Amino acid sequence: MNFHSMSADQLQATQQDLRKLYDELRSAGLSLDLTRGKPAPEQLDLSNGLLSLPGADDFRDAAGTDTRNYGGITGLPEIRAIFGELLGVDPANLIAAGNSSLELMHDLTTFGLLAGTPDSAQPWSAGPIKFLCPAPGYDRHFAITESYGIEMIPVPMLPNGPDVDACAALTARDPSIKGLWAVPTYSNPTGVTFSEDVTRALLEMPAADDFRIYWDNAYAVHTLVDAAPTPFPVIDWAAEAGNPNRVYVLGSTSKITFAGAGVAFFGSSAENIEWYTKRASVTTIGPDKVNQLRHARFFGDADGVRAHMARHREILAPKFRLVLDILDDRLADSKVAAWSQPEGGYFINLDVLDGAARRTIELAKEAGIALTGAGSAYPYKNDPLDRNIRLAPTFPATEDLRTAMDGVATCVLLAATETLSASHES
Amino acid sequence: MNFHSMSADQLQATQQDLRKLYDELRSAGLSLDLTRGKPAPEQLDLSNGLLSLPGADDFRDAAGTDTRNYGGITGLPEIRAIFGELLGVDPANLIAAGNSSLELMHDLTTFGLLAGTPDSAQPWSAGPIKFLCPAPGYDRHFAITESYGIEMIPVPMLPNGPDVDACAALTARDPSIKGLWAVPTYSNPTGVTFSEDVTRALLEMPAADDFRIYWDNAYAVHTLVDAAPTPFPVIDWAAEAGNPNRVYVLGSTSKITFAGAGVAFFGSSAENIEWYTKRASVTTIGPDKVNQLRHARFFGDADGVRAHMARHREILAPKFRLVLDILDDRLADSKVAAWSQPEGGYFINLDVLDGAARRTIELAKEAGIALTGAGSAYPYKNDPLDRNIRLAPTFPATEDLRTAMDGVATCVLLAATETLSASHES
Repeated sequence: MNFHSMSADQLQATQQDLRKLYDELRSAGLSLDLTRGKPAPEQLDLSNGLLSLPGADDFRDAAGTDTRNYGGITGLPEIRAIFGELLGVDPANLIAAGNSSLELMHDLTTFGLLAGTPDSAQPWSAGPIKFLCPAPGYDRHFAITESYGIEMIPVPMLPNGPDVDACAALTARDPSIKGLWAVPTYSNPTGVTFSEDVTRALLEMPAADDFRIYWDNAYAVHTLVDAAPTPFPVIDWAAEAGNPNRVYVLGSTSKITFAGAGVAFFGSSAENIEWYTKRASVTTIGPDKVNQLRHARFFGDADGVRAHMARHREILAPKFRLVLDILDDRLADSKVAAWSQPEGGYFINLDVLDGAARRTIELAKEAGIALTGAGSAYPYKNDPLDRNIRLAPTFPATEDLRTAMDGVATCVLLAATETLSASHES
Repeated sequence: MNFHSMSADQLQATQQDLRKLYDELRSAGLSLDLTRGKPAPEQLDLSNGLLSLPGADDFRDAAGTDTRNYGGITGLPEIRAIFGELLGVDPANLIAAGNSSLELMHDLTTFGLLAGTPDSAQPWSAGPIKFLCPAPGYDRHFAITESYGIEMIPVPMLPNGPDVDACAALTARDPSIKGLWAVPTYSNPTGVTFSEDVTRALLEMPAADDFRIYWDNAYAVHTLVDAAPTPFPVIDWAAEAGNPNRVYVLGSTSKITFAGAGVAFFGSSAENIEWYTKRASVTTIGPDKVNQLRHARFFGDADGVRAHMARHREILAPKFRLVLDILDDRLADSKVAAWSQPEGGYFINLDVLDGAARRTIELAKEAGIALTGAGSAYPYKNDPLDRNIRLAPTFPATEDLRTAMDGVATCVLLAATETLSASHES
């Protein structure tokens, strides 16, 4: 029954039933974790072939380079070709780097802060700067900007991407806005995939010359449906818009092969790539080319990656289905929650009643179910309506996931009755 | 014959002979490279076992952690134990990180610049800062500080390490000196190993609270004699000196296994490690733990590393011997050059006549022999006496090395006659 239509007595009776259910949940002594977007062990098993690659005496790339030695700051041509196709970037404009695209984003930010970009009159750190943060968004993006004291301005995330009008209104009048965090495909945590209109508008809108869009295409091939969307040629579109250096394309194999032992990618304009390469040549001895060769051998080509992702989907789609079915069964009638129906990515976005997210997460925690901290998907962990919860269904085993989600549903409902009772009273 | 004792006529005749020799050298059309400290292919072959490790279904560390997934920012316990012993650092105070100790040094510097250290009143970038640069030293150290506009102050490198009196006189009166670059074992390029007295004095000397010694023990186990020196427990000594956070210990397997596909290490006080870990948790998803497991499996223990380094020595010692023999045969009598007799590391330090280094390198280049650029071992590439040349004998095949070094000797002698003729004339 729709909780909003209940009388105070009905609500109280419902709350008593839910409290009983919750007490049973608590007494079960669970220890379950829905916090992080980690691959499950059976997903990692799909890549176990990597554990004995490239194999004895296989260490030269297609150009004849000995991958065991120093050098090659831009990475192996063959792995750049494979992921250039998948990320929609000309391999000439794509660098294969270390094991972490987050680290690339960090470095791009510190380079900007300490030295500026090719379009900067001075280092970003010469004065206060700001980043636009479509929210809900990715907590680890926000952690980078927060750690360096960069002011984060939340902008709404809409069904087709960030609210471009809001973004443009801000960047047009404030040249201290230097960045925008974006996860364009199956966004973390909303599952939103940016439309062409939104994408072009972000590339075209007036902004500081050294304004940069961190186009973190982390889930470019991580589809739960038949095929991932074709990536937009954002570097070309940025050039057409007269802002050739605006976009930093990022990606990695972290959720394709091994999280932590994968390969990360950075794509941008020729000028940005030259700038980055020059700085990276000071920073590091170069990427792990043997690991890049290992990955190239494992996949063969872009179709090899697509076939591999289909095997991930076979594992993940039933887990997402299970979570959505439980949400539907337990929460649909009450009208106290809404949730995303993602076609890819690693998360389900759950919005509960305004003011009830923190309490829901607290109830779950006391019952041994760890959920991502309240507000995590917002800059400064400040969810202004206190309603957003990020669910990460990938890592737990199916039965644990079922138990955890059933428990979460109970917590959502119980917290909702508390919130509604309080509003009845007031 | 000693060139310094020659009459002008003798010198001219000698120069004519050398010019003839040099013309023959030039007409040989060589293309040889003595610039970088890179392992030779046969050294890399010693580690080819890594190419199929850790092997199918081997992915858990001793603690049961699945190395294929996210997490573990401090690295695998077993690889930290092995290299803790070799670097003289308690494994609890040692982090196993990515593939590049240079990148660690870069990050430690940018963290200091943007956020300060645990002992900093403000970020280093709040005002002009300086680093002490024992010279001759490592060009890539100097490149990091130069790239961020940190003023580099050269201090003399003496036979037992940096001139500590000069260092202490500077740090005692200038709190804007925040760092000192050091390669304490078989230093690049001089081969100098710091003595206990010098080491203790560096740890004890008065300096700013947030002054840091970058103790880059890159060649800790890279000996050309029977055994590498026992590493000093510099973290303990720094604590005893009342400067517990002063020292950053760095190391890597870049010249032990595969250059670029190895494991880098960072050791320091508990407080520094906590500080670094907290910042690195924002920066990156964590190190490549599979590669750390791969290395742990390959070596087994610290003795496994020592045995492996003995095989490197079998390849390298004859190359160093060859270079030293040629220098002795061709240059000793003339008294126009002096060179190091390193017991380890990757370089031979060659000092030619004052004012003759640039000319020698130019002559070699025109004859197709690439030497490290003039002044590279000095901050801002400024060798004040223009006499230092870094020779890197490890990479070339033996016959190429012989040809190249014989050519270099000719260039040294020819340049010396030019320098001496000019001084005769003036």
